[in-house]
Amino acid sequence: MHEAQRQRTCALLQARQIDAALFASPASITWLTGFAPPVQTGANPFAGAPPLVWWDGDRFTLIVVDGLASLAAPFADEADGGLVSYLGYTLTTPLNGAQHVRTLLQSLWADTARAQRVKRIGVESWALPAAASGILAASPLGGCAWVTIDGWLAPLRMVKSAEELAKLRDNFRLTDIAHAAARQAACVGAREIDVWLAAKAAVEKAAGCRVPMGNDCVVGYRTENIGGWPLDHALRPGDSLIVDLSTIQHGYWSDSCATYVAGEASARQQAIHAVVSEALAVGAGLLRPGAVAGEIDRRVREIIVDAGYPVYPHHTGHGVGVTGHEAPRLVPDSQEILTAGMVILLEPGVYFAGETGVRLEDAFLITEDGAVQLTTHDKSWAPVA
Amino acid sequence: MHEAQRQRTCALLQARQIDAALFASPASITWLTGFAPPVQTGANPFAGAPPLVWWDGDRFTLIVVDGLASLAAPFADEADGGLVSYLGYTLTTPLNGAQHVRTLLQSLWADTARAQRVKRIGVESWALPAAASGILAASPLGGCAWVTIDGWLAPLRMVKSAEELAKLRDNFRLTDIAHAAARQAACVGAREIDVWLAAKAAVEKAAGCRVPMGNDCVVGYRTENIGGWPLDHALRPGDSLIVDLSTIQHGYWSDSCATYVAGEASARQQAIHAVVSEALAVGAGLLRPGAVAGEIDRRVREIIVDAGYPVYPHHTGHGVGVTGHEAPRLVPDSQEILTAGMVILLEPGVYFAGETGVRLEDAFLITEDGAVQLTTHDKSWAPVA
Repeated sequence: MHEAQRQRTCALLQARQIDAALFASPASITWLTGFAPPVQTGANPFAGAPPLVWWDGDRFTLIVVDGLASLAAPFADEADGGLVSYLGYTLTTPLNGAQHVRTLLQSLWADTARAQRVKRIGVESWALPAAASGILAASPLGGCAWVTIDGWLAPLRMVKSAEELAKLRDNFRLTDIAHAAARQAACVGAREIDVWLAAKAAVEKAAGCRVPMGNDCVVGYRTENIGGWPLDHALRPGDSLIVDLSTIQHGYWSDSCATYVAGEASARQQAIHAVVSEALAVGAGLLRPGAVAGEIDRRVREIIVDAGYPVYPHHTGHGVGVTGHEAPRLVPDSQEILTAGMVILLEPGVYFAGETGVRLEDAFLITEDGAVQLTTHDKSWAPVA
Repeated sequence: MHEAQRQRTCALLQARQIDAALFASPASITWLTGFAPPVQTGANPFAGAPPLVWWDGDRFTLIVVDGLASLAAPFADEADGGLVSYLGYTLTTPLNGAQHVRTLLQSLWADTARAQRVKRIGVESWALPAAASGILAASPLGGCAWVTIDGWLAPLRMVKSAEELAKLRDNFRLTDIAHAAARQAACVGAREIDVWLAAKAAVEKAAGCRVPMGNDCVVGYRTENIGGWPLDHALRPGDSLIVDLSTIQHGYWSDSCATYVAGEASARQQAIHAVVSEALAVGAGLLRPGAVAGEIDRRVREIIVDAGYPVYPHHTGHGVGVTGHEAPRLVPDSQEILTAGMVILLEPGVYFAGETGVRLEDAFLITEDGAVQLTTHDKSWAPVA
């Protein structure tokens, strides 16, 4: 899996005269291998270090604590460095994942130094533990020049492979299921957390497993009503509720937003909803290869401003993949150019703090001659049955 | 909040001739300040670094990305270093949390170098990003000796303060609620994920917010039936289901386990359940200040072995706090001594791979003359109404 990603990475590193590289950011690990360790309750408690990928100039080796080895194994290509793991949980000796990963890294780096001639090593320095960089410095590779490669893979990640698109489509199906459940649950008396739970349960029942879910579930009368976690604020008659959902499946994020109303929407809310719908539709119509991100941003904001509403303080849209927000960004003055294979979110909104807010968001795959919509959730304000 | 923790840390560092220290592990950040950033979907996507705490020899300063500042502010003691934050999400300039945290750290360390005489700096090297240690090395403090202090706080964390006990009790109340719901949901036809969701929903409805929940929900016929995430394995008549739950509330973990059965338990399952119950009761009876962890482990395992069952391959118990598994460990030959104020889990089990497994777990607070039980969930095998 993810062979294409590793080949493209290899080409990039070689073009920049990097002879070996150490990846440590969760996004890089998932993108290079397809492996995404569980995140729901934080890092594996017995790991000495986060999952790492070592590229020795030829092969990519995935390094994990043994407790993650069975989850990671299907993603490690044995013809391409494979998987190595180190002792984490033990019963009869003191827990010391740090010492065990140290020994493993020392051995790995000694092997590389014997096998290849390495002069320049790339390092993801903001995700790599300082202790691991210390071990590298003290290894036979310690005399190499170090190059920080934080963020180098981000531009490569913009255009999705067929394999990634299959994962993303599978995942967007889940957000559609989530929204159908949230729509039903957003009734007078329901709290933000109740609506959230209805969506989460629908997702996990459909997936047959735990699925991390992010973003926002905020009632219009919150002062900060643009985003936030669901709390116990209850919906009163006429309250709007922004439900912005990302599910994380196969290590990939989806994203999508709808705004529901408990009971009857006011004329003002309906007018806002109509303008935001129009802004989203205008943005969608501009998506095609060659389009300039900043120009789409400008045109979408214009709809909101021309209608006399305050313009939203956030991006008009963004890419999505192994992270929930990635390049290209649809923000003012961005010169980024859309190309086929990008997956783009559009999410205009109008907010009146403490009163009401409406945000609508869809996902699109840029195709050779336009875009196809990946989200199919109902964002209309027809009365809920 | 957590003043006592910082005072004890200060005393430890001074006793070991540390003049300043940089904390980076999530457990240390939470224990020193009470602040626990959300974990459910991974790290804040716009942060340059994880939350850090800088101790300048006198005061503790919490360092977070601005997107976490409002969550963190209630935990930052302004009389004790307070909170500093840096730019994360921006609309009009490229996202560059790493650059912004760099500038902040440079300024902070220049201030410290002007104000104090620092010779030895303690660093949590396995959690600190290599880039941050590079910034420290290039700062006016760069000439100092570095001492790795990974794990130094773990022994201090064993005995809980009154403030921590209040958080833990609040949290154990949630696991009791979770188990009551799981017990009802563990019927013939229900899948692991359905039982899990029933428990999760009960917890989050009671808490009025999202609550990370960990551990295991595994049907007896799984080959690896000791632990694992809930999947779509359905309960057939007579299947056992291990439900081991930790909720994370206020940055603190709870823990607890029960085993449910769909329909009627077999005579063999009932016999296993009785022995595991006895093992748990015997362990509970041994909990008191002065007890030796390894001795409790031995006595509890003995009950299982004497009954003719294979002894469980895991610990008999462990501490809990800002992590789900911490000192003291109740494992073979451990010489650790229990003292008042520790919170200890006991969790004996009997497992027959692919067939059935039973684990029962309760939490206890060690008191001056024994222990009080913090979990109250029903672990009996009376038929469910």
